[in-house]
Amino acid sequence: MNKISPKLQSFIPVSENSDFPIQNLPYGVFRRCVGANDRPRIGVAIGEMILDLAEIDAAGLLDGTAVAGQGLFTREALNAFLALGRPVWRETRARITQLLRADEPALRDNPDLRDRALVPMTDAEMLLPVHIGDYTDFYSSKEHATHVGAMFRDPDKALLPNYRHLPVAYHGRASSVVLSGTDIRRPLGQILPPGQEQPIFAPSQQLDFELEMGFFIGPGNALGEPIRIERAPEHIFGMVLVNDWSARDIQRWEYQPLGPFLSKNLGTSISPWVVTLEALASFRVASPVQEPEPLPYLRRHGDWAFDIHLEALLQTPNMAQPQRIARSNYRYLYWGMCQQVAHHSISGCNLRPGDLLASGTISGPAPESRGSLLELTWRGEQPLALARSESRTFLEDGDTTTLRGWCQGPGYRVGFGEVSGTVLPARHDE
Amino acid sequence: MNKISPKLQSFIPVSENSDFPIQNLPYGVFRRCVGANDRPRIGVAIGEMILDLAEIDAAGLLDGTAVAGQGLFTREALNAFLALGRPVWRETRARITQLLRADEPALRDNPDLRDRALVPMTDAEMLLPVHIGDYTDFYSSKEHATHVGAMFRDPDKALLPNYRHLPVAYHGRASSVVLSGTDIRRPLGQILPPGQEQPIFAPSQQLDFELEMGFFIGPGNALGEPIRIERAPEHIFGMVLVNDWSARDIQRWEYQPLGPFLSKNLGTSISPWVVTLEALASFRVASPVQEPEPLPYLRRHGDWAFDIHLEALLQTPNMAQPQRIARSNYRYLYWGMCQQVAHHSISGCNLRPGDLLASGTISGPAPESRGSLLELTWRGEQPLALARSESRTFLEDGDTTTLRGWCQGPGYRVGFGEVSGTVLPARHDE
Repeated sequence: MNKISPKLQSFIPVSENSDFPIQNLPYGVFRRCVGANDRPRIGVAIGEMILDLAEIDAAGLLDGTAVAGQGLFTREALNAFLALGRPVWRETRARITQLLRADEPALRDNPDLRDRALVPMTDAEMLLPVHIGDYTDFYSSKEHATHVGAMFRDPDKALLPNYRHLPVAYHGRASSVVLSGTDIRRPLGQILPPGQEQPIFAPSQQLDFELEMGFFIGPGNALGEPIRIERAPEHIFGMVLVNDWSARDIQRWEYQPLGPFLSKNLGTSISPWVVTLEALASFRVASPVQEPEPLPYLRRHGDWAFDIHLEALLQTPNMAQPQRIARSNYRYLYWGMCQQVAHHSISGCNLRPGDLLASGTISGPAPESRGSLLELTWRGEQPLALARSESRTFLEDGDTTTLRGWCQGPGYRVGFGEVSGTVLPARHDE
Repeated sequence: MNKISPKLQSFIPVSENSDFPIQNLPYGVFRRCVGANDRPRIGVAIGEMILDLAEIDAAGLLDGTAVAGQGLFTREALNAFLALGRPVWRETRARITQLLRADEPALRDNPDLRDRALVPMTDAEMLLPVHIGDYTDFYSSKEHATHVGAMFRDPDKALLPNYRHLPVAYHGRASSVVLSGTDIRRPLGQILPPGQEQPIFAPSQQLDFELEMGFFIGPGNALGEPIRIERAPEHIFGMVLVNDWSARDIQRWEYQPLGPFLSKNLGTSISPWVVTLEALASFRVASPVQEPEPLPYLRRHGDWAFDIHLEALLQTPNMAQPQRIARSNYRYLYWGMCQQVAHHSISGCNLRPGDLLASGTISGPAPESRGSLLELTWRGEQPLALARSESRTFLEDGDTTTLRGWCQGPGYRVGFGEVSGTVLPARHDE
């Protein structure tokens, strides 16, 4: 993948701490909040602006590329663009990068077009970037799986025998994937009180966040035709932050033998900007050593982990500012994206453009790197001390959880923005 | 729901054993194989013909109903119609019933329109009837859960403690739902040989069918707004046969702790005709007694089981005809459709028009009523004797599995047609 020079500058002002310099250029779907032109559009983030790709295309500035005049950027979702594959993604990115360069006059010196094509983020509403046909959630942090296994099952056999052999995953609920900013209703459900044999019906008392990342599938495969691991990168478009809200008490009672269900389908939040694999190319690092070596269909080809700094923040109704409660990194994951794609399709399962594959909670070796309250408070036994003498075991009504992620380059960041959500009280009419 | 008189006749000839008399009128999506007009259309089955609803609408014969002139029947899927809800479904059905009556001349005596609007099934290709946003698979047969628990875990604790309290379910893979007639490729995957600690990579040797039924969601609900059980029927459009192909050896190794994944996403086949709840109204029966009584949000209101005869047939490459290997009935299910809807949404999970909720394998009390080879052969220990000295433990390459289902009325059947699929050999290029 082409790496963009860290020195490259745009004519759009971008602060050093911005998540969205010209080295990033993530894709999203937005709608103008002002003016009459309020249909969904596809754009890229640059500094505090959105570049409206539909306007750029209409002005002929994409001419000569494969996407020119295809109407791809007036769609309500990125799926059609995702289906086109990496050569087209790379060409499109190169053209957009060129148009935004400080020394390129085509857009810079055309005030009418700038007015039409550059939208302040504050004047736009973001929408779900992708129509998600299927959502899969992996369980790829060995530390997370170890913690959960110790708490839910047996500390001496926390990691099940299959864990080091295959990237465990389950199907999530595509309908309940929502955009950052969507409120999350505390779920009702069945809970087995400790020591009891009869479940009760109540609002979850153990509502939690999960610090995850996910990626969107590009072209994908036909049913019955697995994607080999060495070709997996061709099918990975880009990444977002994911908060897989979880009701632990509901989960503990329902999850055997078929896995989590209602405890996870109350809502899964994603960040609005999809950061491409090209933008992440400078931040590739080696993955953790795998022992035993996986079967050949899962053997890694090159370094496919990424050095993405992650943090989780919590803001209670009493706080003026969110407080950081966890710091982690995407590179900790035991199973990587290419292995996830190869495994997911080895049975012949078809992946379609826009499918979301999430990592599972990303916990690391240090206590502060645990990516959920379940782990941070050890299922509530060690409450988390917050500012002003507040504390939390699990989320309370009105709490806001925010996840952030970024890659740190020399003098710039390739960032993901954030994914945020606030807990609403349970419904009382049941 | 309005029951249709068993004596009602259509001017279209329908044999007594047909699945599709005027009392049924299931919906499907088809494409003509002959002539130029080969765009997908929505139709209803009547005898050996398909009534093209788009042509009927264009001719004005739906005028005065809510669906007239809406372009609903030139769509490629039923979703928009499903979103409209039961009053519209009922009105549409009443009009179609009227048009097909033996004593109604509007269509009967219009040879040009009959020529345009009535398509022999042999001249049409069926397509997936619905765009399935999410596919959920329940586990609602107590007998099936008991059998699987005994084989996979502990015969003395076959049924887990939660089973009688909630309808266990997991999210399936929507992308891999295919129409009857689609070949199913034997999957590759990880298998733990008996007594070993290291998995091998191999084609599944325990490929199985699962005799299931499923239903499609109508209007559905917003995220965070559960559907109460007494309103669940408003959200159930109609039913199909489902074969949830399963690789038992892959399943056994992968399924803990998050449930089945690759062992199920190799393909799930459904029948093409969606039989409406209205057509099934005459066949409602009481469900099995539930002990203990479920929590209030799951308490049943009235009889919502259906007396649907089910059978599974197997045809090996050496057979001239398929051979029946199991007989079951939808009424055996411990958890019913309304309970499934209420439970699925109680967490706030949003159900969307066209979502598929399947029953899980439908096994009954008798040995011949077991709905999978896993159960019929007790994980291969008791091979199934077939004609001509053949036998089977699990499916072999070239085997075809067919599921059929019907309700038997006085002198007529309300049938589901069939769902069929043939096993292709595993790919060898891995």
